[in-house]
Amino acid sequence: MLILELGRENSIELLSLLRLGRIACTQGPQSYVVPFYFAYQDNYLYSFSTVGQRVEWMRANPLVCVEADQIISAEEWATLIIFGYFKELPDTPEWKDEREFAFKLLRQKGVWWEPGYAKTIIGGIERPLVPLYFRIEIRKMTGHQAVPDPAGSIEETQNQRKTATTNSFRRILDAIRPKS
Amino acid sequence: MLILELGRENSIELLSLLRLGRIACTQGPQSYVVPFYFAYQDNYLYSFSTVGQRVEWMRANPLVCVEADQIISAEEWATLIIFGYFKELPDTPEWKDEREFAFKLLRQKGVWWEPGYAKTIIGGIERPLVPLYFRIEIRKMTGHQAVPDPAGSIEETQNQRKTATTNSFRRILDAIRPKS
Repeated sequence: MLILELGRENSIELLSLLRLGRIACTQGPQSYVVPFYFAYQDNYLYSFSTVGQRVEWMRANPLVCVEADQIISAEEWATLIIFGYFKELPDTPEWKDEREFAFKLLRQKGVWWEPGYAKTIIGGIERPLVPLYFRIEIRKMTGHQAVPDPAGSIEETQNQRKTATTNSFRRILDAIRPKS
Repeated sequence: MLILELGRENSIELLSLLRLGRIACTQGPQSYVVPFYFAYQDNYLYSFSTVGQRVEWMRANPLVCVEADQIISAEEWATLIIFGYFKELPDTPEWKDEREFAFKLLRQKGVWWEPGYAKTIIGGIERPLVPLYFRIEIRKMTGHQAVPDPAGSIEETQNQRKTATTNSFRRILDAIRPKS
């Protein structure tokens, strides 16, 4: 296995296809990480959430870290790590356009569930899920790719390595794309 | 969709089957989250890593958060969130038994790659991956399960809801188990 940096262009291409990531936030010395669905557009990750511990922590400290990946096997994967900044898109006239943009983008990219159907039962008490829109500004992104190398042949020449890396990256993107 | 708490027993069963998770740590106000492979045994997650930003941060602040899940769709998933404590298993006589236990467990559960084959190329410079063993002590774990409810029928009776929930949880576990 060979681990390589993903360039900016490949990182953006991967990020545009991915929908599921994990978002970490922190309160004092304690981190907190949960899965979330997002849609990427122009240096922002758009998403929605229900109000809860995650949102309360991000409101108090907007510095977050997002991880998103496509893992084919332990030896063939691509992963992105983003340091970002949380911004709520509140239901106010000032943020109307951004909220509508987020809603349309999330629907268009299939990142949505009907909140009317979603209920949480915690401690026997039902509560509806009220969606809260937010976006993460990407301040720094690093990407890595692992390329399998069972025969060691990848290292023979730079050209072979480059071809194997490109082919593997295409396989990773193909694994994300919806099947037609 | 209905979101329910996973009981302790189901959470442990899920955790025992899962291999891939995401681990978050924090330095000052900034969190950092990366994917990692682990094997669960007796209130510990065993894993290995290469030395890098993650390990340096966990050495400085051992409070971590681990997320592991099986996601079948946006409406059918189970997720575990663990607040844990990082402990390195150094290559010293004192930790020999724990290191050997970790190595055997990780091999037995298929969480391993041959470090001799793994090389990282960062900024054009090759460096070998030297594995560092560690374990995460589970201090608090919460689990949740989402059950799809397209027809709204789940809510008709408590028994129907219970059956649908149990069946969905079995589907989630089956999706993780290696195909025979």
